[in-house]
Amino acid sequence: MRHLMIQLGGATGTLASLGGRGLAVALALSEELDLGLPASPWHTHRDRLATLVCSCGVLVGSLGKMARDISLLMQMEVGEASEPSAPGRCGSSTMPHKRNPSGCVVALAAANRAPGLVASFLSGMVQEHERATGSWQAEWPTVAALVQATGAATASMAEVAQGLSVDDARMRANIDSTQGVVFAERAMMLLGEKLGRDVAHTVLEEATRRCVAQRRHLHEVLSEMPEVRHLDRETLKRIEVPEEYLGSADEFRKHLLSAPGDGVEKE
Amino acid sequence: MRHLMIQLGGATGTLASLGGRGLAVALALSEELDLGLPASPWHTHRDRLATLVCSCGVLVGSLGKMARDISLLMQMEVGEASEPSAPGRCGSSTMPHKRNPSGCVVALAAANRAPGLVASFLSGMVQEHERATGSWQAEWPTVAALVQATGAATASMAEVAQGLSVDDARMRANIDSTQGVVFAERAMMLLGEKLGRDVAHTVLEEATRRCVAQRRHLHEVLSEMPEVRHLDRETLKRIEVPEEYLGSADEFRKHLLSAPGDGVEKE
Amino acid sequence: MRHLMIQLGGATGTLASLGGRGLAVALALSEELDLGLPASPWHTHRDRLATLVCSCGVLVGSLGKMARDISLLMQMEVGEASEPSAPGRCGSSTMPHKRNPSGCVVALAAANRAPGLVASFLSGMVQEHERATGSWQAEWPTVAALVQATGAATASMAEVAQGLSVDDARMRANIDSTQGVVFAERAMMLLGEKLGRDVAHTVLEEATRRCVAQRRHLHEVLSEMPEVRHLDRETLKRIEVPEEYLGSADEFRKHLLSAPGDGVEKE
Amino acid sequence: MRHLMIQLGGATGTLASLGGRGLAVALALSEELDLGLPASPWHTHRDRLATLVCSCGVLVGSLGKMARDISLLMQMEVGEASEPSAPGRCGSSTMPHKRNPSGCVVALAAANRAPGLVASFLSGMVQEHERATGSWQAEWPTVAALVQATGAATASMAEVAQGLSVDDARMRANIDSTQGVVFAERAMMLLGEKLGRDVAHTVLEEATRRCVAQRRHLHEVLSEMPEVRHLDRETLKRIEVPEEYLGSADEFRKHLLSAPGDGVEKE
Repeated sequence: MRHLMIQLGGATGTLASLGGRGLAVALALSEELDLGLPASPWHTHRDRLATLVCSCGVLVGSLGKMARDISLLMQMEVGEASEPSAPGRCGSSTMPHKRNPSGCVVALAAANRAPGLVASFLSGMVQEHERATGSWQAEWPTVAALVQATGAATASMAEVAQGLSVDDARMRANIDSTQGVVFAERAMMLLGEKLGRDVAHTVLEEATRRCVAQRRHLHEVLSEMPEVRHLDRETLKRIEVPEEYLGSADEFRKHLLSAPGDGVEKE
Repeated sequence: MRHLMIQLGGATGTLASLGGRGLAVALALSEELDLGLPASPWHTHRDRLATLVCSCGVLVGSLGKMARDISLLMQMEVGEASEPSAPGRCGSSTMPHKRNPSGCVVALAAANRAPGLVASFLSGMVQEHERATGSWQAEWPTVAALVQATGAATASMAEVAQGLSVDDARMRANIDSTQGVVFAERAMMLLGEKLGRDVAHTVLEEATRRCVAQRRHLHEVLSEMPEVRHLDRETLKRIEVPEEYLGSADEFRKHLLSAPGDGVEKE
Repeated sequence: MRHLMIQLGGATGTLASLGGRGLAVALALSEELDLGLPASPWHTHRDRLATLVCSCGVLVGSLGKMARDISLLMQMEVGEASEPSAPGRCGSSTMPHKRNPSGCVVALAAANRAPGLVASFLSGMVQEHERATGSWQAEWPTVAALVQATGAATASMAEVAQGLSVDDARMRANIDSTQGVVFAERAMMLLGEKLGRDVAHTVLEEATRRCVAQRRHLHEVLSEMPEVRHLDRETLKRIEVPEEYLGSADEFRKHLLSAPGDGVEKE
Repeated sequence: MRHLMIQLGGATGTLASLGGRGLAVALALSEELDLGLPASPWHTHRDRLATLVCSCGVLVGSLGKMARDISLLMQMEVGEASEPSAPGRCGSSTMPHKRNPSGCVVALAAANRAPGLVASFLSGMVQEHERATGSWQAEWPTVAALVQATGAATASMAEVAQGLSVDDARMRANIDSTQGVVFAERAMMLLGEKLGRDVAHTVLEEATRRCVAQRRHLHEVLSEMPEVRHLDRETLKRIEVPEEYLGSADEFRKHLLSAPGDGVEKE
């Protein structure tokens, strides 16, 4: 933890009041507290602490992204995922049927607060000589609020992630309810091999417009269009099979589980 | 540079339109561009970019601290340091005598702008599924403004640092003009050995009050106080010699020049 | 427009270089430019301009709220509203079926940027004497970016609002698809008259659980519960008629259209 | 106080659970609490509250500007003003001679925190439908911190302003110590009447350079320069009399005291 270091500098950062023993005292203190020994006092040089503060901001941002996605999936009209329920939580006092994304709310509230707190800290780096007038004092509530928000968001999303329930039947139903138009890209790639991409895009625009207007499935509409006559009905029908259009999703999932932050080693 | 990686994911981050060749294409692209290959597409996962953005914020904050100090030293009433002058810069159109801290102004302006830009970026991390509505688009001007401000501040303070002139005679004169009261801590430590720190603090409060009221030097005032009679006049006079109260300043300076950011290795 | 005033102060805000004609020149300038005449120069007193800047921030926040709601209503699984379409806009290059909330994206991007820009401006109010070192210079790109974002968001949402299409059939279908559980509050109020609110809340929790599990409508499930036997089937069925549970919505709408910001006059 | 209004809307902002009595209940509540009655519920429309929050931000910014100026004037090398001292405050534990700007520090700390808190609030205006996920909850600590900081800054600067001591002898001494070069503008205006402004600017640049190099006063240096021979020594000497170069300062002061925020009425 190279960011956790003692700060011992005396009134002006020289440790002059300790005579010739300044460095020895600093070393002893750092060992006593099991903290690093910095190259010099940093009472008004806050870059190291700023880096820690920013890390909280980035972590909370990532947790907020998770929370935003889950809360969108929990919308009544979507219903594809749900936070763990427990007696006494998530309920609504006036609406007995509701399950609120209350774990996500904790992370989203933190993600609302963190950027402003990080900004306050960064603004406060511009301190005067060896004694800040105000910026240093402002750090105390700012860092306390940020650490608290970061901890709350982390704990809350850990609980949400561990107990998340996923409704795969609803996912399938939501895909089906689109009548195949979400597979327009796939159809376009397939048609494009013969027609060229521009023509294929135009065909699909027309086809998806008919799907929506006539409440029919994409493969049906396509099967009636002369530009698509070279494809048989079975091929068209398979366009709408989600399992056949997952691309590299599973490989990405494996990479993320084995080395989430570091990228993939190239041989 | 583990933060600089390609982003290639297709419409929903699966590379499905590339069939089974998604990873091979991604690898080839990363080699073509000499960028890292991430574990997965990150179109709406901005933590890596956020870390870069925060690094700019921290760097600009440190440069702003330098600039604040130098601009304070350049005040007419202080006059201990000065930015490099050059024909056509630093001058004032209405005040021919002024040398403005115009290099520091560039860094201080950047330090004013950077925290808000970092906050905007962090706020924008909370993006929807695989497609941000607004936050992604907002990154473009935000990151451009931040990188521009960071570059301008860095270049400006490099120039200021290289050409900084320091007026050591004025530094000495400013110390002298305090009539020795800035050495009150030193006197207190010396007296404290015999009188104890609390009594010594009270003596020095009274002594410094007299210095200010009577416009006399600390060693003179002290020499007349009965509590200090055990110290001879020569010892008292040396209290006001700055060179004898530098503490560990020079060792800190050496540490900073040899390993500024990493702390000191303990054996 | 009391916030738009001339700033004329000379080097230190005294207009001393104009001799005794300072105020007369200032008055003439304010008339020439058709701007207000302030009580004194305000070169480093930015409260008036800060109020304008904050007004932009609040306006963009309100526009962002509109845009967030509309973009949520435009989700494929919701589909209750849609931005105006036009040739060449809103389309997706890879997904021919999509209509993107591209007008809302402009406002949401502005709502992401504005808070950080307002924060930069407010931070910069702490200026030195009659000459800011950096904060004043930082205002130029900050105010320019904020005004630009405010204008873009306003224009974009005006266009979205004027051309918004609302799918009332889909709204009705989305309500129906909840099988009446969104009327649980109404049922609870009705049952509560006889059973008391606590018992009614418990009954509705159980009833809505059965609705979801058995995919049946609330009025059907309720009609089979012994606690509800005092209500006839027709009464229960009407619980699910949305038109009968609009409360004061229409009166609020009228108030908003006649005096949106000012509240209602009490006699 | 048109910004202080009740919020009563029920679960979705329609007051449907109150049947036809919604508006009557809202009116009675607003009278009971002596608050305004808004045109409609505003649970997720935060513009009115945002305006209050921004007003805090602007006020704190103005207080911070005052505090910055006073703390700069309190520097030991400047010494032109001083916060009120009182037993137990302002002292330094290690430096008995110091009087710290501890009242200004409160305002400057608030001015560091406020912009980030305002930004958090504005970011949180983009709320979902009739129920914010996170942004609403984030408002509670944000508004509490901002109101607290605003109150602390206001109280602290009221105390500083009421007890501020001004050292006019030191002000005069600081002016004198510039050897007249701060009057270069005045000299330039005077010379410019005969020589033209460009020539006068060049003459003054040279003259002020000599003042600094030779530690002599501006009027002495000028009296030896051939370009200035048309001005007699008495006229030159009066250039350095501050009382004769105050411009409209006193009129501005009177305007500020009589109508600080509103500008001057033009007849």
